[in-house]
Amino acid sequence: MAKITKVSPLAPAAFPDLPAIGGVTFATAEAGVRYAGRTDVMLACLAPGTSIAGVFTRSLTRSANVMDCQAKLGGDSTGGGVIIVNSGNSNAFTGKAGEASVAAICAAVAQATGVPEGRVFTSSTGVIGEKLPHDRIVAKIGDLVAAQSPDGIAAAARAIMTTDTFPKGSARSVGIGGKTVQIAGIAKGSGMIAPDMATMLVYIFTDAKVEQGALQAVVSRLSDVTFNCITVDSDTSTSDSLILAATGASGVDATGDKAFEDALHAVMLDLAHQVVRDGEGATKFVEIRVTGAVSDAEAKTHAMSIANSPLVKTAIAGQDPNWGRIVMAIGKSGAAADRDRLSIRFGDVLVAENGWVAPGYKEADAAAHMKGENLQIGVDIGLGAGQATVWTCDLTHDYIAINADYRS
Amino acid sequence: MAKITKVSPLAPAAFPDLPAIGGVTFATAEAGVRYAGRTDVMLACLAPGTSIAGVFTRSLTRSANVMDCQAKLGGDSTGGGVIIVNSGNSNAFTGKAGEASVAAICAAVAQATGVPEGRVFTSSTGVIGEKLPHDRIVAKIGDLVAAQSPDGIAAAARAIMTTDTFPKGSARSVGIGGKTVQIAGIAKGSGMIAPDMATMLVYIFTDAKVEQGALQAVVSRLSDVTFNCITVDSDTSTSDSLILAATGASGVDATGDKAFEDALHAVMLDLAHQVVRDGEGATKFVEIRVTGAVSDAEAKTHAMSIANSPLVKTAIAGQDPNWGRIVMAIGKSGAAADRDRLSIRFGDVLVAENGWVAPGYKEADAAAHMKGENLQIGVDIGLGAGQATVWTCDLTHDYIAINADYRS
Repeated sequence: MAKITKVSPLAPAAFPDLPAIGGVTFATAEAGVRYAGRTDVMLACLAPGTSIAGVFTRSLTRSANVMDCQAKLGGDSTGGGVIIVNSGNSNAFTGKAGEASVAAICAAVAQATGVPEGRVFTSSTGVIGEKLPHDRIVAKIGDLVAAQSPDGIAAAARAIMTTDTFPKGSARSVGIGGKTVQIAGIAKGSGMIAPDMATMLVYIFTDAKVEQGALQAVVSRLSDVTFNCITVDSDTSTSDSLILAATGASGVDATGDKAFEDALHAVMLDLAHQVVRDGEGATKFVEIRVTGAVSDAEAKTHAMSIANSPLVKTAIAGQDPNWGRIVMAIGKSGAAADRDRLSIRFGDVLVAENGWVAPGYKEADAAAHMKGENLQIGVDIGLGAGQATVWTCDLTHDYIAINADYRS
Repeated sequence: MAKITKVSPLAPAAFPDLPAIGGVTFATAEAGVRYAGRTDVMLACLAPGTSIAGVFTRSLTRSANVMDCQAKLGGDSTGGGVIIVNSGNSNAFTGKAGEASVAAICAAVAQATGVPEGRVFTSSTGVIGEKLPHDRIVAKIGDLVAAQSPDGIAAAARAIMTTDTFPKGSARSVGIGGKTVQIAGIAKGSGMIAPDMATMLVYIFTDAKVEQGALQAVVSRLSDVTFNCITVDSDTSTSDSLILAATGASGVDATGDKAFEDALHAVMLDLAHQVVRDGEGATKFVEIRVTGAVSDAEAKTHAMSIANSPLVKTAIAGQDPNWGRIVMAIGKSGAAADRDRLSIRFGDVLVAENGWVAPGYKEADAAAHMKGENLQIGVDIGLGAGQATVWTCDLTHDYIAINADYRS
């Protein structure tokens, strides 16, 4: 485990009040997968008719759980559904044993709940390459099923943490046709667990009624502008998973509803930002907005090149308005750029334009912006109308301490 | 300037004895571009008939010097040639003023030497975004031309340093047709100079006779397996330049000669390794060899994904045989992989195979390998015959200190 256990300086003041979501109940347990004295399994039961959509890591070495979830999306929803998540062991790179563990958990959940195995979705996060002691989880399933409560979502947020320094939750409500629809979500990441990599898990629940195909389309589209626009260190987990469950308990059909989509977007963005705010060693939350690229895709390529550059991230840690490193990151990104059309801003301060430092630029102005906790870097490429916004954190001594020192 | 000025623990014991190269003379000067009390300009004069080839950064925000050099490659060699390099200011992102500085230096060199402007190659390395005070360099050109000596290459290696912790040189000789051909090269990188990024500059000289087109072909091909296979932090400079000059003074035509190419390869690889060994904060030199990929290109994609992963690099810094992070880096690389066909070795220790930890693997064995200064990570993808080898260093607290702390 990491030596650094202080709460991130970028954490929200408190965990939000999350509403109960009709059609969803939660339970948590201490299964002792790896940790002692804390919960490490969460179970969410979903009412019959719940639409389930998901987005998963593109890693080619993804875990057995991820592959199983992907295969199950789009199945018959009449039997309800279950999401079961353990922390402490990621069940990744465990060969055929990994698939056996997933099968054993799904079978036990199906037997205890009556939900078909094809509607049981599992996630595991934690140590990689060690056989998941799934018997410890299976042994708790009876207790979990018995303890279901509509108010358990905050406890669930805690049970899925690994080395996260704070639990992550977000909620929005939205009025549709005179009724109210609730959306509540929890997430974990990007803490570390020896010897594993950062993993992001996200579970979002709503009592809206949305047909599965439409739900999948909206969550895929919104992931591209939220969770797929954040980066801590450019590394991709073998286990990243986002599952969105729409129970329909509100009786409100939100399929294609713009207000519902906006509210879901807000929940996803809030959770994504919280993941960045818990980036290992982070002391700065950084929004990078690129405009003027030849396409939105090229704008994102530039923005991610800036966000993932160790030289940019260390400059931010040092509170250094080092625009030369921004120029470097744009130049190497592979997307189109013209040195003499670039302009760069730190906050509201115009730093560079026309291929050179801006006339009248005073480093003290930009340096003052860099001393804040929430930074904005703006880049206009000057070539077109493409734009993108991504979020990242700085690269600090504590990142090295968390990731290099704890097993030495 | 960086606070950390100790010599890299990975530095060679001493600067090598480099032979004089027929047809090349060197001089250095203290022009005071940025530094006081040290040389910061080097001039190399090349005999008439010298073939000049080069490889340059692919950055779209590359410096005026780089664009000027690229435009001049392949010109008429009858008038000889000159390479002039300054440290302290990179002349990058300086708008039209950057092009004016290059033109002023080339004109002054041409006037002082009689070499056509089209055969004067310039490089600048150091601070970005500040106008190059080229008058200070121009003022020294008379002295530099007067001071030319065939034995000045070691001094030249020192004049081009920025925050390099040691000068970098390498030489080989090769017998061809009963005569001896000499190859000697110098390099700088990847030290930092506030507020610039790492820059790699390489100059290699030989008295072999090689036609320009053939020389360009061989240096391009060898760059792909030497300088383009090293990475310190994944960032790409706006100024990276490699120039190879073949004077022909030995009278030996080495065009297409395998022994010459092998010797040149050895010099380039040695210099590339020295650049990695001077990576900011480096304490480990790491060779990553990937075999069994579906193509050589995909093997290199996997290898660079491993070499650039902050999680892999911090694990190496922590002497942690963290093979889970290798699996992660392969999975995210974008090149083909099958979890269950991978095998991973640290040194001679088989760590993982068949999608899981290897039977009989003892972490103590791999941990012993990780304690060394020179590490090997071997990955077999198990899908084909593609292979690649790349070199990198670890990611340490000193990297953060050098890049984040010195301006705070």
